Amino acid sequence: MQRTEIAEYGEFGLIKHLTEKFKTQNASTLKGVGDDAAVLDYKDKQILVTTDLLLEGVHFDLVYVPLKHLGYKAAVVNFSDIYAMNGQPKQITVSLGVSKRFSVEDLEELYAGLELACKVYGVDLIGGDTSASLTGLAISITCIGEAEKDKIVYRNGAKVNDLICVTGDLGSAYMGLQLLEREKIVFSTSSDAQPDFEDKDYILQRQLKPEARKDVIQALAQNGIVPTSMMDISDGLSSELIHICTQSNVGCRVYEDKIPINYQAVVMAEELNMSIVTAALNGGEDYELLFTASIRSTMLASLDILRNPNSD
Amino acid sequence: MQRTEIAEYGEFGLIKHLTEKFKTQNASTLKGVGDDAAVLDYKDKQILVTTDLLLEGVHFDLVYVPLKHLGYKAAVVNFSDIYAMNGQPKQITVSLGVSKRFSVEDLEELYAGLELACKVYGVDLIGGDTSASLTGLAISITCIGEAEKDKIVYRNGAKVNDLICVTGDLGSAYMGLQLLEREKIVFSTSSDAQPDFEDKDYILQRQLKPEARKDVIQALAQNGIVPTSMMDISDGLSSELIHICTQSNVGCRVYEDKIPINYQAVVMAEELNMSIVTAALNGGEDYELLFTASIRSTMLASLDILRNPNSD
Repeated sequence: MQRTEIAEYGEFGLIKHLTEKFKTQNASTLKGVGDDAAVLDYKDKQILVTTDLLLEGVHFDLVYVPLKHLGYKAAVVNFSDIYAMNGQPKQITVSLGVSKRFSVEDLEELYAGLELACKVYGVDLIGGDTSASLTGLAISITCIGEAEKDKIVYRNGAKVNDLICVTGDLGSAYMGLQLLEREKIVFSTSSDAQPDFEDKDYILQRQLKPEARKDVIQALAQNGIVPTSMMDISDGLSSELIHICTQSNVGCRVYEDKIPINYQAVVMAEELNMSIVTAALNGGEDYELLFTASIRSTMLASLDILRNPNSD
Repeated sequence: MQRTEIAEYGEFGLIKHLTEKFKTQNASTLKGVGDDAAVLDYKDKQILVTTDLLLEGVHFDLVYVPLKHLGYKAAVVNFSDIYAMNGQPKQITVSLGVSKRFSVEDLEELYAGLELACKVYGVDLIGGDTSASLTGLAISITCIGEAEKDKIVYRNGAKVNDLICVTGDLGSAYMGLQLLEREKIVFSTSSDAQPDFEDKDYILQRQLKPEARKDVIQALAQNGIVPTSMMDISDGLSSELIHICTQSNVGCRVYEDKIPINYQAVVMAEELNMSIVTAALNGGEDYELLFTASIRSTMLASLDILRNPNSD
């Protein structure tokens, strides 16, 4: 495979090379990459801002995460935070710290993932920063989104007797990670070993290429449901529920048999002799939406929206 | 000195501890730290966004940069990008990657610097992310600002016969860095040595605690000057001028004897047998404003605004 050193492009040439393929999709993006700051116009909408810093060896392991998937996931997890406010992501900035280990082709892969995520979710790349790093890869993404004034959903609005709802299923991303970690150990002791990923495609996809629940936000709007509180599940159901309860000043009751769990995740947990419920409660990285709503509003709406279309 | 381990607080406790002292100063900040995203309302103003990633060992050296100064500078260099668009910085998000070497007290110092910068420039801290790092400190800051629709100044508007203007003086921050590097080497060979900083306060301050030119933006507005192009000098005058010329499709002529240089910087350059003009052209980190304006508009305005009040 070809290897072009980053130094051949220089900082500004590199940014231009990596970002020129991105097409602007939103009317709110007036000026993207190429000046001291990007310029946006949100007119009468309110603005949502979220940010994230991912460091190699802490948040991702390039032994089993392809760079394209990493770019996709790094963008999508930020979109997820904007959906969790009942908003729409519109722009991202991407800052990279890159060690000499990485070539221009590596960064092209990473940007291909970012570009795909931007295309799928209708988001514009509007700026960033690329610099040297002494150790590995650092990715910082800030996502800006819009929401209508009265439709923003915070964590602090849950009421007594509200239903607690989660989308999709929980624990699969964590079981995917456990599988990848197992195969990494097998590979490190015998490099001839082929990874055993049969019938594990769903949990792998949940770990390596998660999606944000844009579809759920659309379905809630179509069904006229405004949740009383909402957040996305990045750290695990139990941690997120505590945030909602604390900020809303309510308690909660979780029925173990109602926690949605995928069959592949159950099989994987059995293979590894782990508790799938623990994985669902504490595993994290599901990027599903956790929300509360009045019983009346959820009864009026179709419950179909709570099913994950990607799930078995 | 007391040392509290970060693990004692946990991620969410730590963020709360570090950010609860920050007071909201802007009407546009509706919701800051504590949800999936911050919420802003800019009404009819346009929105400016800039971002920056700073990595230990690449962008800063904690041997001679106090953490409070680092926090101050990390914020101010982002404000500078917003002023360079002729806007006003209003909000920042701060993401940190922190290795075990750092204590809660260290982060309190860093945040004290961020807080001071926010107070001096009237900016709100609205969110962020704190996570572990395997190696040293990583700081990613995104700054959001506002500007009036027709007052934004890009890099691409310079016209033939415009004057090229710079504020303050150039090269001092670079000479301050050279001084700190020299004293670091002296210290590493003889730890009894006391650093020799006599009559060097100005160049040290320019390196360790730079300011963004909010005053110049105000003065330009008061004098009714809208520059034809503008950017801040972070990489050095020659690099920035090339950006303006390329994007504006013009050439430029720089008179060496007109480049503003501080006396302490000249003395330091002589001591180190370096060219102060090279430092002024290529040193960077001055965070002064470089702009172009029609001769007519600058003749009408008081030239006092181009003097740096902090300079000798």
